[in-house]
Amino acid sequence: MLEKVTESPDITKKQFDALALELHPGLLALQQRLRAAKFPAIIVIAGMEGAGKTETLNFLLGWLDTRSAHVQAFRKETDEERSRPYYWRFWRALPKKGETGIFLGGWYSDAITGHALGRTGEDEFTAELEKIKAFESALAGEGALILKFWLHLSEDEQEKRLKRLEKDKDSAWRVTKKDWKCLRRYDDFYETADAALAETSTPDAPWKVIHAAHPHYRNIEIAKAITDRLERMLDRAPAPKNVPDHPKPRTVNALRSLDFTKALAPDTYEKELAHWGARVAVLTRELNGKKRSLVVGFEGTDAAGKGGAIRRLTQFMDARDYRVVPIAAPTDEERAMPWLWRFWRHIPMRGGAVIFDRTWYGRVLVERVEGFCSKKDWTRAYGEINEFEAQLAEKGAVVLKFWLATSKSEQLKRFKLREATEWKKFKITDEDWRNRDKWDYYEAAACDMFARTSRPAAPWVLVESECKLHARVKVLRTVAQALQKALE
Amino acid sequence: MLEKVTESPDITKKQFDALALELHPGLLALQQRLRAAKFPAIIVIAGMEGAGKTETLNFLLGWLDTRSAHVQAFRKETDEERSRPYYWRFWRALPKKGETGIFLGGWYSDAITGHALGRTGEDEFTAELEKIKAFESALAGEGALILKFWLHLSEDEQEKRLKRLEKDKDSAWRVTKKDWKCLRRYDDFYETADAALAETSTPDAPWKVIHAAHPHYRNIEIAKAITDRLERMLDRAPAPKNVPDHPKPRTVNALRSLDFTKALAPDTYEKELAHWGARVAVLTRELNGKKRSLVVGFEGTDAAGKGGAIRRLTQFMDARDYRVVPIAAPTDEERAMPWLWRFWRHIPMRGGAVIFDRTWYGRVLVERVEGFCSKKDWTRAYGEINEFEAQLAEKGAVVLKFWLATSKSEQLKRFKLREATEWKKFKITDEDWRNRDKWDYYEAAACDMFARTSRPAAPWVLVESECKLHARVKVLRTVAQALQKALE
Repeated sequence: MLEKVTESPDITKKQFDALALELHPGLLALQQRLRAAKFPAIIVIAGMEGAGKTETLNFLLGWLDTRSAHVQAFRKETDEERSRPYYWRFWRALPKKGETGIFLGGWYSDAITGHALGRTGEDEFTAELEKIKAFESALAGEGALILKFWLHLSEDEQEKRLKRLEKDKDSAWRVTKKDWKCLRRYDDFYETADAALAETSTPDAPWKVIHAAHPHYRNIEIAKAITDRLERMLDRAPAPKNVPDHPKPRTVNALRSLDFTKALAPDTYEKELAHWGARVAVLTRELNGKKRSLVVGFEGTDAAGKGGAIRRLTQFMDARDYRVVPIAAPTDEERAMPWLWRFWRHIPMRGGAVIFDRTWYGRVLVERVEGFCSKKDWTRAYGEINEFEAQLAEKGAVVLKFWLATSKSEQLKRFKLREATEWKKFKITDEDWRNRDKWDYYEAAACDMFARTSRPAAPWVLVESECKLHARVKVLRTVAQALQKALE
Repeated sequence: MLEKVTESPDITKKQFDALALELHPGLLALQQRLRAAKFPAIIVIAGMEGAGKTETLNFLLGWLDTRSAHVQAFRKETDEERSRPYYWRFWRALPKKGETGIFLGGWYSDAITGHALGRTGEDEFTAELEKIKAFESALAGEGALILKFWLHLSEDEQEKRLKRLEKDKDSAWRVTKKDWKCLRRYDDFYETADAALAETSTPDAPWKVIHAAHPHYRNIEIAKAITDRLERMLDRAPAPKNVPDHPKPRTVNALRSLDFTKALAPDTYEKELAHWGARVAVLTRELNGKKRSLVVGFEGTDAAGKGGAIRRLTQFMDARDYRVVPIAAPTDEERAMPWLWRFWRHIPMRGGAVIFDRTWYGRVLVERVEGFCSKKDWTRAYGEINEFEAQLAEKGAVVLKFWLATSKSEQLKRFKLREATEWKKFKITDEDWRNRDKWDYYEAAACDMFARTSRPAAPWVLVESECKLHARVKVLRTVAQALQKALE
């Protein structure tokens, strides 16, 4: 995508001023429209060292209303970042819907610098570009406008610029050793950037190469490009209304082949609980030393006993090591973000454990069946979920997903018992009864989900929960054995 | 507050079950009422090593609805925590209104252990207790219910318990070297805890000492105490409606004695800007090495030029070092927290800078004048603000607060100019005009604020902003000089 330019285009100050007279108010007006829209603008400013990324940033901050436009630039990872998947830092820096996030280098800096300087080989570089594409595709899928600018300089221009800056004492501080090093490696940066741009320029997140030797030209080109794409995005036809999806019973049906006669007598239960509990106690305390973490998700039919199983698990863990995260309706901060954001925000550091009481699988269960998201949304969710869990596992997380299942008749019994018990009444709502009416749809959606998201590094474990004692021990034993295997 | 008990009280399993039959449903019902209330419950479980803090936790988690009750326990500080004031980790762990946060040890563990083991002297210990009181008073002021339990054991009981746990292979993992060490230092812990409890038992956050040798007795006592205080809190009469406060013009009026003729010619401006800008550029880049940070707040009359001054400041800084935080209406997550929370969440790590466009002073300005909070609220805010800024400064932050002031007639000119300019129109709203009508009230509130919150470690700097160029340079110069002084 890059060309070896020798002479960069330019415009005069007068031309700039004339163009700015229309562009600037236009851009501000669009930014005001964006605030009321349901998507964010994500602007990546990347490019050759010394091409004026910071000046471009300041230009944009000068033009935009900075109350809804924020810069995100990244220093060395903190230990909270380092001990979570690499993309955690980007997820937590995303702009809200209606806002503009300007990313300096963004998720490209490390990948390109690492490869240009020979720190990462071809395979690793390719894998990093794949992750970038998955990330941007997830953002675009949620409606984000993604604008990526590559500020380009020829080798000659790069050298001239550094010398000019160094000569003036008021700007000499801008030039660092790294700048000179990058100049010496110009060809390596050129080749790497060229490959990265070609690979990651997608219809949803295209690159725009800007010849950056001359600030007036550079700034006008960027302002034009933002105006153009923001306007088109704002004028887009609204998405059609979401419709509920009501899948038919599946022939291959993991849930209907469960053996609901599995049960445990109370005294066996006590013994097994103490035994596996002690294993969990010891093993979870070893996570930190082995730089591993634990992520456990609980899903299942209503009243299957998720809360009880979670309590039997956590009582053996050190309270400093784990958090239980109940997933309820999203807050407004969460609704202003891509759907996976509210799960990313809770993932543990190395050494820690997070237990989700309901999970990101709501996307392909309740949101699918009730029509809270579009078919396109829940269809792409399988891939997004697999990528999310793969990044967790790659960073050392032991990932387990439990589906607690009862028969339909057992559920009825439990619903009635809850309604009859004064202090359990609050646990049962009209919604539970409504969900029960859609039992078959939920069952089919769950079967699709098992088929599409169970992988060795993040398996689904189906738990026969007709007998709560059996279910609790199976959960505890599964966690203990998975930890044992991972920490060996 | 502690007594040297020799024999702890106990109840039988049968008595426990009989009491639980009423207490448990009652507590769940109260927890449901709490969810709809406008305050959180903050439970601190502290006590002698081996007194069963974790078991108490598990007991509470077994009884409470864990979808709105969360445990907060703390490991060694992460670097994100370590490079901010100590209380940052507690602020970010606070429960939302309607929820229950159970803090294991909470903000007491380090203070008590540190002093008992002789790591901190009398003065430091006293200072820590003062911070605790300020923290709890801020929480209680916001309506939080604070319950603090000290689980007590005699030396004999502590020893017996450790031996009993060690004997059984399924519970041996619970006993650590630290437990035995604490036993050897029993008297030191006793004395320290006794002093800490006496000092920090306040009407809003009283301690309850629980004899903890026998689990049934311990658990029932705790459940009773929670029930009792939660019920009383829920039955409290609602607070009276807030009323606007309209203070009269002050005799000592820092704003009326400003010299609004101060101005700069454009060419002097350019020179000064480049000069002080270069200083800011160099000095902000030294913050990290010197383990310092920078917190700058901007307040002032509407249209005084805060945005422009901020841009002139940040353009000299490395985008990786700073964040601009515009303060708008709180989100629902912010509204669910004590009022200072939304500022605590943005404070920088060492090496970083955060620039607030409007600040926590809204509490004693707009919230006071418009009656968004009660007189009690904004009155106690001065102290809370001073404590907040003191903790920032103590941790190495350079704290500066700018008030950008124009005359009333200059404001009118700027409002009209904004209204007449297509792309500036959005900046001026009906609210700006309404605020202008209350000019005198805001001026008086600002004068009170300067008098009560300007201290050497966090001074107010009044900036004559009739001439924007003068104002921008004064801001830049003040920041440069403050950094220079701090980094010397």
